[in-house]
Amino acid sequence: MSRKGNLMTVRQDIKVVDATIRDGGLCNNFEFTDEFVRELYNTNIRCGVDYMEFGYKASKNLFNENEFGKWKFCNEEDLRSIVGDNDSPMKIAVMADVGRCDFKTDFLPKSESVIDLVRVACYIHQIPAALEMIEHFHSLGYETSCNIMAISQASDAQIDSALEMLGNSNVDVVYLVDSYGYFYPESAAELAKKYVEFGEKYNKLIGFHAHNNQNLAFANTIETMSYGVSFLDATVSGMGRGAGNCQMELLLGFLRNPKYSLYALFTFIEKYMLPLKAQGVKWGFDIQYMITGQLNQHPREAIAFTKDGRTDYCNFYKNISDNE
Amino acid sequence: MSRKGNLMTVRQDIKVVDATIRDGGLCNNFEFTDEFVRELYNTNIRCGVDYMEFGYKASKNLFNENEFGKWKFCNEEDLRSIVGDNDSPMKIAVMADVGRCDFKTDFLPKSESVIDLVRVACYIHQIPAALEMIEHFHSLGYETSCNIMAISQASDAQIDSALEMLGNSNVDVVYLVDSYGYFYPESAAELAKKYVEFGEKYNKLIGFHAHNNQNLAFANTIETMSYGVSFLDATVSGMGRGAGNCQMELLLGFLRNPKYSLYALFTFIEKYMLPLKAQGVKWGFDIQYMITGQLNQHPREAIAFTKDGRTDYCNFYKNISDNE
Repeated sequence: MSRKGNLMTVRQDIKVVDATIRDGGLCNNFEFTDEFVRELYNTNIRCGVDYMEFGYKASKNLFNENEFGKWKFCNEEDLRSIVGDNDSPMKIAVMADVGRCDFKTDFLPKSESVIDLVRVACYIHQIPAALEMIEHFHSLGYETSCNIMAISQASDAQIDSALEMLGNSNVDVVYLVDSYGYFYPESAAELAKKYVEFGEKYNKLIGFHAHNNQNLAFANTIETMSYGVSFLDATVSGMGRGAGNCQMELLLGFLRNPKYSLYALFTFIEKYMLPLKAQGVKWGFDIQYMITGQLNQHPREAIAFTKDGRTDYCNFYKNISDNE
Repeated sequence: MSRKGNLMTVRQDIKVVDATIRDGGLCNNFEFTDEFVRELYNTNIRCGVDYMEFGYKASKNLFNENEFGKWKFCNEEDLRSIVGDNDSPMKIAVMADVGRCDFKTDFLPKSESVIDLVRVACYIHQIPAALEMIEHFHSLGYETSCNIMAISQASDAQIDSALEMLGNSNVDVVYLVDSYGYFYPESAAELAKKYVEFGEKYNKLIGFHAHNNQNLAFANTIETMSYGVSFLDATVSGMGRGAGNCQMELLLGFLRNPKYSLYALFTFIEKYMLPLKAQGVKWGFDIQYMITGQLNQHPREAIAFTKDGRTDYCNFYKNISDNE
């Protein structure tokens, strides 16, 4: 499979998805001010971003609303307090986790909601549950994606089977999610080619969601894009769980479509992201995340190490590489 | 041209070059303590690093020795105070800048020096001057490299001509240097293929030196490597001018040759790099460096912006993109 387009051309299928509130919310318990979210919404529109993900639609039976910021739940009235009727070209997305979402009761019909896209996140063994949710959301009138997480731990046979099932569903977009920041551009591209071939066969679009454990989130995003991935996730300043995500500022600076522009983002970073960092909200590349990425492991122990303010990287490595 | 080897195999031609003192010295005026340099030397040996670059051989007529740390000059006795006779498998490198080095007087014959490799740094219009230096160092018995800087601003015709001249010289290694951090993996790979084809024709090895303006230093290093680049520059924690370089910890974690190991480096980072950062020595990815990288410009204005503690990225962008 050859690359689609080149470094000088515009790919009209590209959609940039801002996941700052959703993935970044994992760093600050979703406690963004309304001003932050409203300014990010306005900035994204000015920058030409195609989708903005506002957070999760998490189950209120499983999670206590008093213990999280509101973007873990994305109530319709909270969304509307920011976007009104969203009279803009940018679409609104939320994420629904398999097994952590009351999907049958918590979603309005699309005609009554400002949400455009519901992104269903699952592990590969949860595809049947994801499909049930996808068909439900599709019947309500939403665009849907299936974001298969931790794909670096799935076997080729599992992936083939999952794609086959998704091919026969009403899902619109299938995401390759490098949850552990394990892939190199070369290996991410190999997997992307498989997804894109599947997408061409079943008329599905493909997305990529990166983590920056090995400082490769942006590199992997543009490498998979070059082989036909269309939906590109990014977050402002790379804000996201652990080592964070592909930085929006790098991605928008790379894309050649003149609909995308950067300078509104510079002002947002100065006014809103630097204060977050100064307040002690932590994310981004660090040695402990590199280690879990290189070992293809979940970053939860690296997140705990970071939270404890530890820097004894060598001990961390010893413990985490001990498989006894 | 196809890739050499794959993500599972060992490439015996690979040489890892630690440039921390030399490129990192640009961040702290070369004022490293002897303890820092000695521990880095020991760490590099434990990690399997192939070459350690100690600094510049700068002209003492052009630069005042009292105004810089000693690694700007790399006197033989200063090198020997760290490495003795360098009874180790690791080789010692220094850099000599065209037009900023008294090369005829400041180098001993190789038989009297612990230096193994002299890296001649030049811009593409300085190739004739570089060749004069290379032949001199070669006649003294040193290995030599030619590090052609700012290659993203050179034309294809200039590069072809430079490579032809170098092909007919006694130089051992020719470096592709992305001084401005401008390249994407796809474009770096295209240029690397040209260099590797040249190297195969003239029996020269090829090197790559990255800058991290777009968070692509590591990605570009492994991408160019996959097409046959052998000499890979990296620095601990990416310490280097402006946005810094390819991180040694990422590179050693990537290479599959069991001669390379990481854990001594983890301890060095904790004990020596974190204190440097805490003392206020600055390097690494930031928006101002991303902007100069995207615009293919020298980072000097971004370095001044950083030094002044500024964060008004939007003004910086306005000024630097103003070509009137």
